[in-house]
Amino acid sequence: VKVSLADVAREVGVHPGTASKALNPATRFRVSAPTARRVLAAAERLGYHPNTLARGLRTRQSYSIGLIIPDLTNPLFPPIARGVEEVLGDSAYTLLVVNTDNDSRRQERQIAALRARQCDGFIVATAHRDDPFVEQAAEQQLPMVLVNRVTDARLVPAVAGDETQAVTEAVDHLVRLGHRRIAHVAGPQELSTGFGRYRAFLDAIGRNQLAGADCPVAFAGAYSEHAGVAAMRELLARPAHATAVVAGNDLLALGCLDGLDERDLRCPQDVSVVGFNDIPMMSRTSPSMTTIQLPKREIGVEAARLLLDRIADPSTIDTRRVLLQCRLVVRGSTAQPPQEG
Amino acid sequence: VKVSLADVAREVGVHPGTASKALNPATRFRVSAPTARRVLAAAERLGYHPNTLARGLRTRQSYSIGLIIPDLTNPLFPPIARGVEEVLGDSAYTLLVVNTDNDSRRQERQIAALRARQCDGFIVATAHRDDPFVEQAAEQQLPMVLVNRVTDARLVPAVAGDETQAVTEAVDHLVRLGHRRIAHVAGPQELSTGFGRYRAFLDAIGRNQLAGADCPVAFAGAYSEHAGVAAMRELLARPAHATAVVAGNDLLALGCLDGLDERDLRCPQDVSVVGFNDIPMMSRTSPSMTTIQLPKREIGVEAARLLLDRIADPSTIDTRRVLLQCRLVVRGSTAQPPQEG
Repeated sequence: VKVSLADVAREVGVHPGTASKALNPATRFRVSAPTARRVLAAAERLGYHPNTLARGLRTRQSYSIGLIIPDLTNPLFPPIARGVEEVLGDSAYTLLVVNTDNDSRRQERQIAALRARQCDGFIVATAHRDDPFVEQAAEQQLPMVLVNRVTDARLVPAVAGDETQAVTEAVDHLVRLGHRRIAHVAGPQELSTGFGRYRAFLDAIGRNQLAGADCPVAFAGAYSEHAGVAAMRELLARPAHATAVVAGNDLLALGCLDGLDERDLRCPQDVSVVGFNDIPMMSRTSPSMTTIQLPKREIGVEAARLLLDRIADPSTIDTRRVLLQCRLVVRGSTAQPPQEG
Repeated sequence: VKVSLADVAREVGVHPGTASKALNPATRFRVSAPTARRVLAAAERLGYHPNTLARGLRTRQSYSIGLIIPDLTNPLFPPIARGVEEVLGDSAYTLLVVNTDNDSRRQERQIAALRARQCDGFIVATAHRDDPFVEQAAEQQLPMVLVNRVTDARLVPAVAGDETQAVTEAVDHLVRLGHRRIAHVAGPQELSTGFGRYRAFLDAIGRNQLAGADCPVAFAGAYSEHAGVAAMRELLARPAHATAVVAGNDLLALGCLDGLDERDLRCPQDVSVVGFNDIPMMSRTSPSMTTIQLPKREIGVEAARLLLDRIADPSTIDTRRVLLQCRLVVRGSTAQPPQEG
């Protein structure tokens, strides 16, 4: 037999209206904390499952937040999700993570599914610089915060790392070590991270008065180890190859290591490599990876706060862009350039 | 203004009933593929969002599958999720990943939330050997498949690696290299993976006629690098320490490397280490990790198939346990034991 709200109320000895208020996260604050605890415990004990679906239909709230990520196997995203969950904490909200696998058709279908279930808001890690979905969502005033990747147009709030500051630190570090021929493996240019880091690289090369011809750029089609190998091969095909590479992210940097290995070049003795993001395990690779530490947890925390604010007050129009400071972590993959023969 | 079903039907020039069938994943097969495509395209173009919530209430189907994982930052789970998504593919189902963070209260709350939203089924990677939630779900005939971790009682179908075969291969490999003093860092004993690998270790030691006293076991409180360091310290505090360690999983194995490092012991020259799972990056650690390759993708694929079968035919009672073969991958962290002084 199905347990009813009345059963729960009877078990605790309160009015069904009180039990109902206690069971609804949105109205729980209207009853005393001890009563709420007793009602929730009794509901659990009796196996009562409030029909949130029916309630969602009335209140138009599902108490779920969707986190849309492009690649579940990229270790960049779990720490961001963790930051989000830290803020949602003991709130009534459940975080639902969906993976688009870098497929825009799939993303459309998934987001439509989540919207149909009236997800209260979205944290989106898949934005393209020009992104029709984000544009549409902004028009429809869907609560949404972008993380890591932003759109060119300021449409919704966004939290990301400060690409310019970060890449500048990486290039300055290599210049201080004595490198003059520094290459860049750029990430996909339709993403703000790929484009922003590329632009920052060109700026940093100019500011350090390095010759553009000595500082080639290879464009990777994806953020993957595979694309990193291909880019490294391209760079090594040049006559006087670079002595250092600033990679668009850590996966590309790992691919660069493989590309060097193929040609029997050693890192860092022959070529230094710098990554970006400091995903887990980068301190354990061989050599350990010098990389830019993106404040991943903090990005998640800040995004969740902005999103909850937006949900609480839907009238807010907020297009702020929060750029968090990154930090260069120097490890074993960077050293002085080899002595010129 | 809200776009209605009638608007979509008019745009395509079909009867609203046809448009409705095309828009519902469960009835889409009743209209021709070209018509379905035209209706879906028009719905997209006009910004029509069918109220799945209302439909879910009628049909009791949400077209979502919940994947419950214990730790989003453990790289074991994304490849399993990928396998699941491969099977869901272009079906109407959306995979929602929720992270319990190894917190059973949090798990209860999250699963209650997903159930209230009438998730059609669950793939559960968090099962304890004795698991009241799984028991309850089995009683209520909730479509559910366990992955990687199973319960002692056979209540629902489960897909996991063959622990016994795997640990036997690892111990045999070390014995062939000449090790006689082999330790085990056991995972949490309330989990089938921790308990099963521990039992398999004892069996393998016995079968190889090694002295139990030479083959100590340290019990780790969690599957984490931190717990691995603590276990390694405990093992190294013994008078004649082991020359090889079989760790309960890769994170524990990484912790063992750190514990050796603290004591200025080298891996593999002084102590060999074997991991379990072959999570991404294990080929890149220093030294690269000899580990058991759990067929993660295949576990996800098989689990998704079992779950979809169960959802399609809820009358099935299936408690099969599918144990997939694992493979030892020999890398740099295992070698012959040091010569006895």
